[in-house]
Amino acid sequence: MGIVLKGIAAALGEALTVKRVDIRIEGNKIEKISESPLPVAPADELVSGEGKLAIPGFVNLHTHLPMVLFRGAADDLPLEEWLRDRIWPLEARLTDEAVYWGSLLGLAEMIRSGTTAFSDMYFHLDAIERAVAESGMRAVLSYGIIAAELDAHGKEELARAEETVKRLKDGEERMKAAVAPHSIYTCGREVWKRAVELALEQEVPIHTHLSETQTEVADCYVRHRMSPVELLQEWGGFSAPTIAAHCVHVTPSDVDILARHRVTVAHCPRSNAKLGNGIAPISRLRSAGVNVGIGTDGAASNNSLDMASELRFAALSAKAASGDPTIIPAQEAVQMATVAGARALGLEGTIAEGNRADIAIVDLEQVETIPTSDPLSSLVYSAGRGAVTDVVVDGRFLMRDRSLTTIDEDRVKYEVKKIAKSYKN
Amino acid sequence: MGIVLKGIAAALGEALTVKRVDIRIEGNKIEKISESPLPVAPADELVSGEGKLAIPGFVNLHTHLPMVLFRGAADDLPLEEWLRDRIWPLEARLTDEAVYWGSLLGLAEMIRSGTTAFSDMYFHLDAIERAVAESGMRAVLSYGIIAAELDAHGKEELARAEETVKRLKDGEERMKAAVAPHSIYTCGREVWKRAVELALEQEVPIHTHLSETQTEVADCYVRHRMSPVELLQEWGGFSAPTIAAHCVHVTPSDVDILARHRVTVAHCPRSNAKLGNGIAPISRLRSAGVNVGIGTDGAASNNSLDMASELRFAALSAKAASGDPTIIPAQEAVQMATVAGARALGLEGTIAEGNRADIAIVDLEQVETIPTSDPLSSLVYSAGRGAVTDVVVDGRFLMRDRSLTTIDEDRVKYEVKKIAKSYKN
Repeated sequence: MGIVLKGIAAALGEALTVKRVDIRIEGNKIEKISESPLPVAPADELVSGEGKLAIPGFVNLHTHLPMVLFRGAADDLPLEEWLRDRIWPLEARLTDEAVYWGSLLGLAEMIRSGTTAFSDMYFHLDAIERAVAESGMRAVLSYGIIAAELDAHGKEELARAEETVKRLKDGEERMKAAVAPHSIYTCGREVWKRAVELALEQEVPIHTHLSETQTEVADCYVRHRMSPVELLQEWGGFSAPTIAAHCVHVTPSDVDILARHRVTVAHCPRSNAKLGNGIAPISRLRSAGVNVGIGTDGAASNNSLDMASELRFAALSAKAASGDPTIIPAQEAVQMATVAGARALGLEGTIAEGNRADIAIVDLEQVETIPTSDPLSSLVYSAGRGAVTDVVVDGRFLMRDRSLTTIDEDRVKYEVKKIAKSYKN
Repeated sequence: MGIVLKGIAAALGEALTVKRVDIRIEGNKIEKISESPLPVAPADELVSGEGKLAIPGFVNLHTHLPMVLFRGAADDLPLEEWLRDRIWPLEARLTDEAVYWGSLLGLAEMIRSGTTAFSDMYFHLDAIERAVAESGMRAVLSYGIIAAELDAHGKEELARAEETVKRLKDGEERMKAAVAPHSIYTCGREVWKRAVELALEQEVPIHTHLSETQTEVADCYVRHRMSPVELLQEWGGFSAPTIAAHCVHVTPSDVDILARHRVTVAHCPRSNAKLGNGIAPISRLRSAGVNVGIGTDGAASNNSLDMASELRFAALSAKAASGDPTIIPAQEAVQMATVAGARALGLEGTIAEGNRADIAIVDLEQVETIPTSDPLSSLVYSAGRGAVTDVVVDGRFLMRDRSLTTIDEDRVKYEVKKIAKSYKN
């Protein structure tokens, strides 16, 4: 008993080469991909590929899942004001219950837009883990460490991070861990050193924010006489595999450092735009050999977890900023949003025999996507999340014919609205 | 017998002030807006406003409707190459039949994303008019004049434009006309002068492309020792009310000229981005008093006619380019996409008693839009075209509960796919 995708255009392998094939999924794996028809047993679940495209599911490389609770709560503000005056006071009032329901809401939104894996940084990890486990989504979760010094508070933060990593390592394979010192401006040198030691010891990646705003960069030059990237290099911050979100304001020398240390950049173009932080030089980063994935950031600064829109914004804003329409063509945009993100998280992330079955299926026969010259172009430039019909994670449907199978959306919406109302008081 | 929107959050008047109201539509007009419940007669069509937002429908201020036929046919190219080597040869093969079906496809896409009026420039006008008439959409249509000299060809082009204007003036009120000299690089001085005379005589606006690419601007300086905006001023090009698409590369002096002549800019941010033309300085234009509306441009350079995505891109790209997150807040983005566009086309364009009923209804109770702090923020930053449930133009439903009422989508898709196949040969 498996799943058979019949006569479907599929973006295969790392190159996302589109071919019309049959795909058989057994257990949690892609068992067989064939250009000639595969047999279908009566017990198999059959998906007609007519007019559809199968892609490796989107990997949302940087988000803060429960922040959907603060969607639209603080628009049109610069990051510092947004964070200190609006978001942190709201977060101080969060409960496990609120984080649990918020996480389920965010998971529902991500599944609906074709996401099959994500990398998160937040707190109230127990509640997030519970929601992710129920949803069937694949995730790399991390506790966001905020500590200037290695004092009692700093040690407590690191202990929480360690506890999270160990618990997740003992749990199911679908959920992994990272160590997440929040940034160079919220964590001091000694805290960073311990965080990196923990990551190396536990063999998990570092997940952080880096060179997001001009203020961060200017303050760093004033305090340390070097850029945030140079500072982190000096601190030994790149000794463990690192996912650095944003990297908007990077010098050519910063780009070299990121490339040399094999840092992955989680490009969050809509959050960077909305907070007035600018447009990260992803074409330069990619040319230097840096692995660049795509993230939505939290829904309080985007205000959306929709990877389909995010990759379109990534492609278009790169062309606008550089003046070069040939950079980040559709296929590269899709690679960033899938393969590149998966690589950073240690996932397989391609449609290939033997790989775990993490697949999104989009219907390209909508009025907004026809005629379709190139399915990847239609996906990037014309389709929206509404085109996503089915999502498979680890061989299991999380969405089938646009209906979620693991999350009770009505219940989640009801609970989130109740919680949101309580935050207004 | 009318339509009653019951207990709906509605963005009222020019300021788009959101209030929960009942709205009665009779004939093609908004008859009554009331904060206390309005009676509903048995023959009335009732729309529950629960969780929904009514906005004045989007006005797509610059598009080339039938170019949906070339969606994805020429991606990742600079404008000059895109136009001369790819698009013009394809357009040379267009037939009335192809334009008719393409127009219906584009109309379906626009209605589905909440658009109630648009301003178009193309050729094969008969076929476009037939499609628009059937669709029930409101439109300002224009024949794109391309003629360097006032020779036999130039006179023929102007005669076609004149014929189009006169025919549309005699037709139904829903369809109006403009005069459309294509640009300063495709139309010479004498052609422009005649086009402006025609617009003044017939009391219709001019619709053109202006300062779209750096090449256009550089060539203009070389040939005329002034900017395209200065040249057009010298040619008397702004004597008639003008809708100028793009205006990406404008100097402070250009901005003053545009403001002084009350030119409306049709900002097409995704087309400008995709072709590598940059980001128009809309905040500077607006500060100078220029009326700025939003257009999608044709689907061959976007590749989408979705105004909901376009206004989000407009807001986010303006913040990214300026580094100022406070500019173009959600309400201003919606105003540009509705009120500003309507003003340029001589339409009423607001939800107010006595106005023509051109309304889009969006459902903000989706997983991607809740919680909703501010409905306009949810619309701009979180919702997508999938949130649009109902569209009313001139008092008539063109979409009801996500089903189109005037266009047979399956037939249109079938015909367009057939046509697209023939273009591949």
